[in-house]
Amino acid sequence: MSSSQTISNSANTIKWLVSKTKEAWLEQALANPLELLIDHAHCERKAAGAALQLMFRYLCEPGLAEALSPLVREELQHFERVLALIKSRKRYLEPLPAPPYGAVLAKKIRKIEPHRMLDSFLVAGLIEARSHERMTLLALNSPDKELRDLYGDLLASEARHFCLYWKLSNQRFNSELVRSRLKELAHEEAQILVKLHPQPRMHS
Amino acid sequence: MSSSQTISNSANTIKWLVSKTKEAWLEQALANPLELLIDHAHCERKAAGAALQLMFRYLCEPGLAEALSPLVREELQHFERVLALIKSRKRYLEPLPAPPYGAVLAKKIRKIEPHRMLDSFLVAGLIEARSHERMTLLALNSPDKELRDLYGDLLASEARHFCLYWKLSNQRFNSELVRSRLKELAHEEAQILVKLHPQPRMHS
Repeated sequence: MSSSQTISNSANTIKWLVSKTKEAWLEQALANPLELLIDHAHCERKAAGAALQLMFRYLCEPGLAEALSPLVREELQHFERVLALIKSRKRYLEPLPAPPYGAVLAKKIRKIEPHRMLDSFLVAGLIEARSHERMTLLALNSPDKELRDLYGDLLASEARHFCLYWKLSNQRFNSELVRSRLKELAHEEAQILVKLHPQPRMHS
Repeated sequence: MSSSQTISNSANTIKWLVSKTKEAWLEQALANPLELLIDHAHCERKAAGAALQLMFRYLCEPGLAEALSPLVREELQHFERVLALIKSRKRYLEPLPAPPYGAVLAKKIRKIEPHRMLDSFLVAGLIEARSHERMTLLALNSPDKELRDLYGDLLASEARHFCLYWKLSNQRFNSELVRSRLKELAHEEAQILVKLHPQPRMHS
């Protein structure tokens, strides 16, 4: 996509994201739609795995398992839908090397409780928020109707998932503390994305 | 329950199970319905975790992710239903020490592929088969209608899950090999249950 073309980016993004995705990412993504789709399947299954891991870690924390279990189910439902589309295009899951995004963010989670719980919720929420922003771009700009529809259908869930992690945080921690920590982590998140990862990924 | 009472056990059990559950287990289970229910919630979430782990381990194995992902979702749906019932009785998840059953069975899984895959499917299937047998006993014998209904509703899924693992095995391995290995593992499984575990558990 040349810089003279207009990228449609009119949708609301979650206000906590510190940076907007650059045109270079969208160009990379639109040039590699199937690789991005396979990466997105991996993102959905990893989101399911991460939520299940949180549920297991804080198993006896009242109100948590009944919030996270339906989230895991929804991530898997999306995974299955994305996988079906991949298969309809005669491909399957492939082991794509992950970009640094998730691992670098995970390192920002403090090791000691209760900070660990708060940071885990907020990092998971930020990843959902970024997915929401980027899927909005794909839903608006992909030349492939089937992909536009897919990303368009899924992106609302990403925003809801951010809200769920936000709510879980605010139910358990002081709201000022949640805001200030989310701001810090959102700056870290934006920092990771300053340099475009060479391989096309949802979080490159 | 005195030995003069009759235990209703007329339902079909999955034919691969080598032993029938003894009256002592049912007595223990019926005497501790809420502890068993909480243990059952743990069983459902562990079954979900184990299936997700298999899906992640063999991610690029064609036909596997699309079979296991809906299974994980169903286990979690059951987990949520059991948790709701626990909460309606003013309790929540509690960290119950696990009986040796799962860990001993896991040790029977051979470390080298493709044996590891086959054994993983068959062990998961046997656990489902035993859950099916014991939930049938509870559905038939519990004096508590709500528990009878719950176990009665869930047990058909346990049998279906056994069949799924059986099918996944037979799609990938020689059927004679699958049968003979399942027989071996079923003997191991029965052996673990010879001595009743002192704490009331679905697999005590």
